[in-house]
Amino acid sequence: MAKNAISPTRTEDYPKWYQEVIRAADMAENSPVRGCMVIKPWGWGIWENMQRALDEKFKETGHENAYFPLFIPKSFLEKEAEHVEGFAKECAIVTHHRLEPGPDGGLVPAGPLEEPLVVRPTSETIIGTMFSKWVESYRDLPILINQWCNVVRWEMRTRLFLRTAEFLWQEGHTVHATEEQAWEETKQMLEVYAEFAENFMAMPVIRGEKTPNERFPGAVSTLTIEAMMQDRKALQAGTSHFLGQNFSKAQDIKFQDENGQLQFAYTTSWGLSTRMVGALIMTHGDDDGLVVPPRLAPKHVVMLPIYRNDDERSQVLEYCESLKKEIEAQRYHDEKIRVILDDRDIRGGEKKWYHVKRGVPLRLEVGPRDVAANSVFLGRRDEPKSSGMDRAEFTNNLCGILDSIQSNLYERALKLRDENMRDIDSLEEFKAFFTPKNQDKPEIHGGFASCFFSDENEIDPILKDLKVTIRCIPLEQETFDGSCIFTGKKTTQRAIFAKSY
Amino acid sequence: MAKNAISPTRTEDYPKWYQEVIRAADMAENSPVRGCMVIKPWGWGIWENMQRALDEKFKETGHENAYFPLFIPKSFLEKEAEHVEGFAKECAIVTHHRLEPGPDGGLVPAGPLEEPLVVRPTSETIIGTMFSKWVESYRDLPILINQWCNVVRWEMRTRLFLRTAEFLWQEGHTVHATEEQAWEETKQMLEVYAEFAENFMAMPVIRGEKTPNERFPGAVSTLTIEAMMQDRKALQAGTSHFLGQNFSKAQDIKFQDENGQLQFAYTTSWGLSTRMVGALIMTHGDDDGLVVPPRLAPKHVVMLPIYRNDDERSQVLEYCESLKKEIEAQRYHDEKIRVILDDRDIRGGEKKWYHVKRGVPLRLEVGPRDVAANSVFLGRRDEPKSSGMDRAEFTNNLCGILDSIQSNLYERALKLRDENMRDIDSLEEFKAFFTPKNQDKPEIHGGFASCFFSDENEIDPILKDLKVTIRCIPLEQETFDGSCIFTGKKTTQRAIFAKSY
Repeated sequence: MAKNAISPTRTEDYPKWYQEVIRAADMAENSPVRGCMVIKPWGWGIWENMQRALDEKFKETGHENAYFPLFIPKSFLEKEAEHVEGFAKECAIVTHHRLEPGPDGGLVPAGPLEEPLVVRPTSETIIGTMFSKWVESYRDLPILINQWCNVVRWEMRTRLFLRTAEFLWQEGHTVHATEEQAWEETKQMLEVYAEFAENFMAMPVIRGEKTPNERFPGAVSTLTIEAMMQDRKALQAGTSHFLGQNFSKAQDIKFQDENGQLQFAYTTSWGLSTRMVGALIMTHGDDDGLVVPPRLAPKHVVMLPIYRNDDERSQVLEYCESLKKEIEAQRYHDEKIRVILDDRDIRGGEKKWYHVKRGVPLRLEVGPRDVAANSVFLGRRDEPKSSGMDRAEFTNNLCGILDSIQSNLYERALKLRDENMRDIDSLEEFKAFFTPKNQDKPEIHGGFASCFFSDENEIDPILKDLKVTIRCIPLEQETFDGSCIFTGKKTTQRAIFAKSY
Repeated sequence: MAKNAISPTRTEDYPKWYQEVIRAADMAENSPVRGCMVIKPWGWGIWENMQRALDEKFKETGHENAYFPLFIPKSFLEKEAEHVEGFAKECAIVTHHRLEPGPDGGLVPAGPLEEPLVVRPTSETIIGTMFSKWVESYRDLPILINQWCNVVRWEMRTRLFLRTAEFLWQEGHTVHATEEQAWEETKQMLEVYAEFAENFMAMPVIRGEKTPNERFPGAVSTLTIEAMMQDRKALQAGTSHFLGQNFSKAQDIKFQDENGQLQFAYTTSWGLSTRMVGALIMTHGDDDGLVVPPRLAPKHVVMLPIYRNDDERSQVLEYCESLKKEIEAQRYHDEKIRVILDDRDIRGGEKKWYHVKRGVPLRLEVGPRDVAANSVFLGRRDEPKSSGMDRAEFTNNLCGILDSIQSNLYERALKLRDENMRDIDSLEEFKAFFTPKNQDKPEIHGGFASCFFSDENEIDPILKDLKVTIRCIPLEQETFDGSCIFTGKKTTQRAIFAKSY
């Protein structure tokens, strides 16, 4: 291939490349409403597949879906001190309930509310209030609820999918009788996220715990999965919070235990959002556009008929239609294989690139010669070259080919992460790792630094200076005696440091 | 059965019965947020199944899902005069974007917005604004989009599912090059709704057109499906709007036609909401609680093991588990059969009624005698009696039994409607039809009156007095010469009149 479909390329200007991929794949765009995006069908189709995969896992692990109000009375938010502190600075406030003609002819807000309502930035407070009514006895526990919904956080600097004022997510909320059970749930849901990331998104993640300053406001502990994007930055991809009794005390979630004693319950919450679509783009996209892992692809296969006249057309389309039926009769991981036949009247090259840019895993070009030879011309989105293939061989191996793309994408992402993750044991090396060689030009640098460290508060200025954050303390690590590379203090744990989204 | 599970019964107090069914089936409850409900897992499960069935139909008819902002700038709403008139009086207005400490210590709204934002009551204006950017040429048409989301209309009197400030729905929005195509779409989507109502909800509906006063604000024509509830009132169950060029002119949705001329496009919109869950309750519920049609049931089958000691327990549970696997291996209308084994440690009678009240289509009671005889004791929710059945006979006929419940529910609802729908050709008869015999006691009366009529504006006082509304002008009716029962004017069309939700 001579020229790439996306300009600039990743190495030329990564942030601009990201925007261009979204535009070229027609996934989303900014709306005229400040900070809110429009998710277009191709972007939504990916989110829909993410939802289906996660929802199935949530149900398998015993959770049920429910729905709670969009609005939270201000007083509810105020009940948990750290929580309101964390969200008050960026939330949409509803103060009136109608519009009426104003003095200058236009409409003005009217019908002031007695108590302002906050558009939910997250639902611990409103869901907790309901839980406090539902829970009476240990027999009512656990409560295992999930909600798919929109939330609003008034972000000032927004980026499509990664940071928007309104976003879509799921938020799980559970109540347990014991600390141990709530911890088990917190860890279980982190693992659900991690397996979703690895198996569906083909995105390797590090499972870890956030340091105190990075916790969810009001949580006792926040677990996280962290992924490396192709510019070597970290993206927090899903979090699971052990809330201890903080929220149950603020919201009075109490139950009578087996001995008739009244106890505060233990709660958890966990969430994953449309941000994951951004993570998918940045994990797999290349200089020709989006690359979608087959398990999440809105379409697995696109068929591109090629012909020069009506005679060839009917011959080729007939072949395509019968092949399409054969493909659709198969199931890929218990889902129908999603195939489109693109017979739009546009130039062949343009049409091919349309689907390349959208990241459709497989392209089948079918012309009169393929019909004659009973073959297909197959292009895999994860490989540059296309090649001819016997029709029966193709249909018999279709699921295998899709799986091979899926694992190839995972291996590629893992390789990139492994190459850019290292143990760093001196401050000098740390600084060098996170400093671009050429300050004048945007340049991909850094990665994940695994370092011994002791106290985050003491090292804040160094990190701020380098624009580096502590991503997490990995859950699985061997314990060695070491000393903090910033303070020299003795410690046994390493944390992952990185620049981040 | 001696006593009914729901008190009051439908005839004793229908509105209260409705509330009681929702409570007894644990479907939803009021939240502490004015007008907003909490949809609990059993209610949500039904909505989820409705969503899946509709979504599949939308996709089959060429629509794609997308997502647009929750907020609509006030000025966007103002562009279409009738539209803003229709929604300005009841909408949630966001005026600030953070909370900060106020003079008396509490938090107060801060960060006033330059332009207030309206929480979407429906999305024609924001989606139309995007469409105006997307449409340039006739080649871009049609645009066929659907959105699943929450909307807010500040209703003062709310009732669970039927009328709430926040509700969930889907809203379809399409753009077409010609009037004819837009009309075809409007009618097609009404038919999708009608078939969903009939085939999934087992609820017969009348397809009709709204009279001008009852149209969607800004529409040229509104088509509707109207269903009769068991109290003989009508419920508008889904609407499909032909918007003509009203919104395309207000939002500047123009395209270049094949001759290079700039034309305003034609648009449609259509919506169906969580109100349908209310319709389902009121169509099929009985004095023992909810009755869910199998096609929408969160669980198709519940297994209730019965035993007196540990020995019997292990025997019965083993039998249940193997039977459960056999059931789960089957598919009902291309979906897995959803079965639960309820082995909670509560009394048998209580447990049985728990599932009766929730309307699970089939209950299987399994005791040691069933194990010995290789049989099951089967209770259908649509029939009062339970009866023994050979195990193999049951599993071989399971889908047939579910279908028979489905069609039985439909036939029952159709019979009720037919019995309470009549041609009425005099005003006296009309008044008698809609007047309860005993004014002191709530009483089920009325039904659907099909009457010749000419002009709705002239008859408004009569209808208001009787609390009757014009539901629709049925799309399929033979044309006869008649005269309006209210004004005596010559006319050829009948309309359906009814009290309504």
